[in-house]
Amino acid sequence: MTKGRFITLEGGEGGGKSTQVFRLAEKLRRLGLPVVTTREPGGAEGAEIIRKLLVSGDPGRWDAMTELLLHFAARRDHLRRTIWPALERGDWVLSDRFADSTMAYQGYGHGLGRAVVEQMYTLVLGDFRPDLTLILDLPVPEGLRRSEDRGGENRYERMDVAFHERLRQGFLEIAKLEPARCVVIDATRPMEAVADAIAAAVGSRLSVSL
Amino acid sequence: MTKGRFITLEGGEGGGKSTQVFRLAEKLRRLGLPVVTTREPGGAEGAEIIRKLLVSGDPGRWDAMTELLLHFAARRDHLRRTIWPALERGDWVLSDRFADSTMAYQGYGHGLGRAVVEQMYTLVLGDFRPDLTLILDLPVPEGLRRSEDRGGENRYERMDVAFHERLRQGFLEIAKLEPARCVVIDATRPMEAVADAIAAAVGSRLSVSL
Repeated sequence: MTKGRFITLEGGEGGGKSTQVFRLAEKLRRLGLPVVTTREPGGAEGAEIIRKLLVSGDPGRWDAMTELLLHFAARRDHLRRTIWPALERGDWVLSDRFADSTMAYQGYGHGLGRAVVEQMYTLVLGDFRPDLTLILDLPVPEGLRRSEDRGGENRYERMDVAFHERLRQGFLEIAKLEPARCVVIDATRPMEAVADAIAAAVGSRLSVSL
Repeated sequence: MTKGRFITLEGGEGGGKSTQVFRLAEKLRRLGLPVVTTREPGGAEGAEIIRKLLVSGDPGRWDAMTELLLHFAARRDHLRRTIWPALERGDWVLSDRFADSTMAYQGYGHGLGRAVVEQMYTLVLGDFRPDLTLILDLPVPEGLRRSEDRGGENRYERMDVAFHERLRQGFLEIAKLEPARCVVIDATRPMEAVADAIAAAVGSRLSVSL
């Protein structure tokens, strides 16, 4: 019975998620709506500490199952401290990544499989779901090139191209399996065009005129 | 198909688990057996970092579900880095706490319930189980008094007596539900008598003469 709206932006590296979270927040605020922007892993004090364990160090530091557990621990803290209170207040919460990233990275990318990640989700979060998920899609080589240009490099970005292809296919499959929640956005277009496509999706799916 | 043996020591605060791990290790080594002693949460590099998140800070820092996830993340790392390789080598592994502590603390003490903790266990560890679990049992007031005398104080020890009573009953219920794996040891007796009772249990359950 939350009063706010929860929108997640998902997709691989270099798709411009954080920029688009910022642009969408601006548009919603212009309508006078209260907006909270956040990100995963992280978004709360404890979750940010867990984030450091996930994004730093050697790529083989944790196995996929341990990563799954750490992501859900961070997510639970994020929800309890940041997202659920904001939704209770009636805010619009925009998150740069959420549980679909865990499904894509650990479930598809690292091969844990859909069933294990789904069972973990249900155990930890029950039937809580975002109201809308925007999947920013672009070909892997372009995403990795953009990510390099940005100077960004973390544990995931150092992984191989085949891994990132599994990720991309994972996100597209999630969108296909949950069409009522997910919209795939073509992120190869210029930033403004992507922002417009996102505004259109939010407007039609969540009945707001942006 | 592990070749080693995995023995866990469990129970509330002040039962002398770490002392008894040391004593049992000595007895096994005297027989020429290779022994690894370890503890939870922790027991591996990554797991020890996660341990710090669990044992420090305010008692309300994490909710029970987040704690459950962090404990299983640490446990997975502990198994992968320390326990499973040791068992593969044929070592005897003695752990000061393991998954029964999670069942007792998060399942019974914090009220997550048996089913949630069992589902998490199966998801993360499948059917892997200790060969033998020794539950060091003593009345709560005595355990807390001993723990205070020792000068030890952590997040759990600061919690209330009713919580520790739920813990104790939880451990006893675990022992009742899994009699083939668990032995309850009366830990009110002098340290030597407890060590003898443990040696007797290990000897009869794991066919070794201590």
